Amino acid sequence: MVGAGNVAWHLAKGLSLKGYKIVQVWSRTIESASELAQRVNAEPAEDLDSLTPETDLFIISVSDSAITDVVSQFNHSGSLIVHTSGSVSMNELAGRSNSFGVFYPLQTFSKYIPVNLAEVPFCIEASGNKELGLIREVAQSLSSNVHEINSEDRLLLHLSAVFASNYSNFMYMLASDILDSRGLSFDLLKPLVAETAHKVITSAPSRVQTGPAKRGDLNTIDKHIKLLASMPEYAEIYRLLADKIRQRFHS
Amino acid sequence: MVGAGNVAWHLAKGLSLKGYKIVQVWSRTIESASELAQRVNAEPAEDLDSLTPETDLFIISVSDSAITDVVSQFNHSGSLIVHTSGSVSMNELAGRSNSFGVFYPLQTFSKYIPVNLAEVPFCIEASGNKELGLIREVAQSLSSNVHEINSEDRLLLHLSAVFASNYSNFMYMLASDILDSRGLSFDLLKPLVAETAHKVITSAPSRVQTGPAKRGDLNTIDKHIKLLASMPEYAEIYRLLADKIRQRFHS
Repeated sequence: MVGAGNVAWHLAKGLSLKGYKIVQVWSRTIESASELAQRVNAEPAEDLDSLTPETDLFIISVSDSAITDVVSQFNHSGSLIVHTSGSVSMNELAGRSNSFGVFYPLQTFSKYIPVNLAEVPFCIEASGNKELGLIREVAQSLSSNVHEINSEDRLLLHLSAVFASNYSNFMYMLASDILDSRGLSFDLLKPLVAETAHKVITSAPSRVQTGPAKRGDLNTIDKHIKLLASMPEYAEIYRLLADKIRQRFHS
Repeated sequence: MVGAGNVAWHLAKGLSLKGYKIVQVWSRTIESASELAQRVNAEPAEDLDSLTPETDLFIISVSDSAITDVVSQFNHSGSLIVHTSGSVSMNELAGRSNSFGVFYPLQTFSKYIPVNLAEVPFCIEASGNKELGLIREVAQSLSSNVHEINSEDRLLLHLSAVFASNYSNFMYMLASDILDSRGLSFDLLKPLVAETAHKVITSAPSRVQTGPAKRGDLNTIDKHIKLLASMPEYAEIYRLLADKIRQRFHS
């Protein structure tokens, strides 16, 4: 396991639970490599050169921006290498090995928060059929939701995931900040957050859009923006999204 | 029940299930009044003048922008009147009756999608103690999550709910549109949407923020914005939110 961040953490633990032997864990810092290695009964690797070639699969699970750098230091040309990124093309791995592929779990991971991998969509891609077979086998051991997706579609999926997850979480964060400003608890919003997400499991998001902008209720929008007078950054976001929703539903 | 929209629908059904008698349902169109009236064994009311004064509670559950207009036509000065709005001050009801209050369920409602009212936070407010007692009794019959909240705090809650629900749903919608543009299914994102919402039930949103903007990964942000070249409206939203997240975590 090359990497010990949020994704590496959950994959290493998941694979280990399914009976796969994690041989070594490398990370930019030996501390985080050791922390993960300990939990999956593996050895921490001091540097990339010390990775043993006797490994069926190298999983590069570092941040997207670090992949090129890590790959350039990699010299196990006979081994199957995959990365776990949504946004990096499979071909970034070409040239370092003849066998390569992608193993992208479409989920949001935080180190210490458990995730049920069995439902996570794994988007896989490979340089050849033999590689695809092995990657599929590993993915299917973790999840029943495995899809072969090419690099172009995977980038689009990753982009859509930024909206559906990173940006919706940011909306929760803004809501939480606004409540904090008057000592109100985010707990009051939790049933609403849960229900909003729950609705789109069975209905299309456009069918269940509600709120003042959807209704074209300019008076309420105005009240809200006035209330954000002391938080201009929030007002800017509020206004743009209200405008876009109105355009979408009223033009 | 004065109104037959999304909120009125769920409240009338919930109250009816708890043994309250819904006497009449009024709505701007007799069709929607009849549709709801039929389901809760009530009479549809042709106009506001035909509402019987022999009622313990008038619930005004029309859109925020229609409340003032509806209230101005109301002439049951002896009765307890409440509205169900997050953004309208309680005092909008003063003058039409001596007994008034607010009964605001903090949830997103769509007519035909069932909601578990038992967990919905009800924000209540009243013109006096007697009124507060009755409103609390009714709210507690539906939910174990009842809070006395004044008009000012309620407006702030409503504003935060726009971010946490309306705007997060809009993020799902943008994600869905982006996937549609290349024939990919929104189903792929459903485990992610569920997990993102689930995380903030136990963790603060700021602690579980992930993604390229959070990491300051300009290269990935750039790839995403390029991918949105043919969807400039989406690129504008993407860019603003990426900037705000970066400012928040990297300055």
